[in-house]
Amino acid sequence: MSAVGLHRVVEPQGVLPQAATRLDTDPAIHPDEVRIAVERLNLDAASFRQLTQEGGDIRSRVLEIIETRGKMHNPVTGSGGMLIGTVEEVGPGSPLGLKPGDRVATLVSLTLTPLRITDGLANWSGTSEQVPCAGHAILFGRSIAAVLPDDLDDDLALAVFDVCGAPALVDRVVRSYGSPRVAVLGGAGKSGCLALAAARRSGAARTLGLVPSTSEKQLLDRVELADVSALADARDPVATAAAVTGALGGPADVTVVCVDVPGCEHGAILATAPGGTVIFFSMATSFPAAALGAEGLAADVTMLIGNGYVPGHAEAALGLVRAEPGVRALFQARLAAH
Amino acid sequence: MSAVGLHRVVEPQGVLPQAATRLDTDPAIHPDEVRIAVERLNLDAASFRQLTQEGGDIRSRVLEIIETRGKMHNPVTGSGGMLIGTVEEVGPGSPLGLKPGDRVATLVSLTLTPLRITDGLANWSGTSEQVPCAGHAILFGRSIAAVLPDDLDDDLALAVFDVCGAPALVDRVVRSYGSPRVAVLGGAGKSGCLALAAARRSGAARTLGLVPSTSEKQLLDRVELADVSALADARDPVATAAAVTGALGGPADVTVVCVDVPGCEHGAILATAPGGTVIFFSMATSFPAAALGAEGLAADVTMLIGNGYVPGHAEAALGLVRAEPGVRALFQARLAAH
Repeated sequence: MSAVGLHRVVEPQGVLPQAATRLDTDPAIHPDEVRIAVERLNLDAASFRQLTQEGGDIRSRVLEIIETRGKMHNPVTGSGGMLIGTVEEVGPGSPLGLKPGDRVATLVSLTLTPLRITDGLANWSGTSEQVPCAGHAILFGRSIAAVLPDDLDDDLALAVFDVCGAPALVDRVVRSYGSPRVAVLGGAGKSGCLALAAARRSGAARTLGLVPSTSEKQLLDRVELADVSALADARDPVATAAAVTGALGGPADVTVVCVDVPGCEHGAILATAPGGTVIFFSMATSFPAAALGAEGLAADVTMLIGNGYVPGHAEAALGLVRAEPGVRALFQARLAAH
Repeated sequence: MSAVGLHRVVEPQGVLPQAATRLDTDPAIHPDEVRIAVERLNLDAASFRQLTQEGGDIRSRVLEIIETRGKMHNPVTGSGGMLIGTVEEVGPGSPLGLKPGDRVATLVSLTLTPLRITDGLANWSGTSEQVPCAGHAILFGRSIAAVLPDDLDDDLALAVFDVCGAPALVDRVVRSYGSPRVAVLGGAGKSGCLALAAARRSGAARTLGLVPSTSEKQLLDRVELADVSALADARDPVATAAAVTGALGGPADVTVVCVDVPGCEHGAILATAPGGTVIFFSMATSFPAAALGAEGLAADVTMLIGNGYVPGHAEAALGLVRAEPGVRALFQARLAAH
């Protein structure tokens, strides 16, 4: 069980590191751990907004949280973020495949990562969620970290890592069907365009990107990541099913939900053929709406909770960005708009 | 699209029957519809409680809802219930396999079922969620109804129908693994005991029922539905994983969550082997807790939203009740305690 970091939990005893109020940040690593020299924290947007609104000296407040808890776990929002750094030491039993000197991003939340800051955050202005810093962090046997590529900007790589579970799971599901018809709701977004690229490469017979506006449709058509695009509000089940069925010549065998607004469950279910699969990647997905919706529609569909972790997902997603100019163009457009 | 009843939606136009504020209850059926002579409504527990607490004449209130909306769809709770009745007329294109005279229970919610009451609910006391009545209801092409068996009490059959999606989906998943190790969290409950019975019959190598108390453990051990039972609070991830791993001799290949309390996601994920599947049947499941939990634990597991509909699920579940004295005993104990 130490692979998930139980031995680093100071209090309360017996809970997982994420649920802990305090972690042990001892720099001496266990045999399956890795120590990282931290270069930058990326606070998650919700946490940074809350800390800003709280008023007071944000730098002292972040330092206080990290020192008290042994991790950057915002007690109000419950959220964390991720970090960038360089591998300092790798335990002989670490399964992560890292070596000293690797520049990495952690793909597990800061809410479960032991962290100690040694420079008082002196170089942080306090006005951005990007926090330059010095200190160390610990990765467990079952943590996830990705080596930052030399050929891509950090910001682009981080944006890709943020959604890299989507193309990996789409690849697995599409291959299990052979050559299915695939619909991606929210096809012009970050996870959506990666899902479309993965579906085509994994053997989809035909891919559809569903988008909510003509500007997104033009964007998606220009990058040619989907065989066909269609316009519909994914919250409207009847319109969504009609758009998917019309564009694909029948319901989808695999429907991928990448629209981050509530209420897209019924449209996705109705757009999917009997025996098909709906993959929900949106955190706005309602479990009861999906479960009861499928029952109410007598829909014999498999419904997957999009797992953000599939082995090899980060490298595979970077590979898509390198191989597909359309994916890169969409990500860069979104980063520039930010 | 008429298979889901769009033609019965009066307002607003273009939404699914469940989202409609008013349905058309015309007794003249479309080619793929079925008309039922209603004998009893079972209001869902949340709706009945709200109506009782609202005060006033509950009979008038229920009649007013049904007359205004053309369905028994509680506007406060958003919930409905189901009904029992006898098939009166079957359209030539109905795929439901029903014939006039069949006594059936509807397995789709009253919130999407056109309903007209003709006896003013004169025989209802107003003190029970069981509402004897006369009138008619309409089933669509994609509705679900199950014929009530002659050899089992209505109450037992209805309790089985309520959770019949669980054993059907467990059967499908267990068969896809060959002979997996299966853990059922909440194994002594209604869906849990059916899941255990289904897992064993579908070829599970070893089945475990996890329960939260010694009384439930004794109950489960007595009926011998699980190869082994274990005690743990399913909301405690570390204890749950340890109990499952200890009892099965390793993590489960298939973990089934039938515990209707929040916070069981991480324990289920941690108890499951890489490449395994977690099936969430509890409506208390949190989508983000499951998605982020798997990522935080670097768990390569497939996570399924338990779909309440699998073709043939009702008949299969009744078959388990008939074949497994342990299932029948557990259901009857729970019905008697009610």
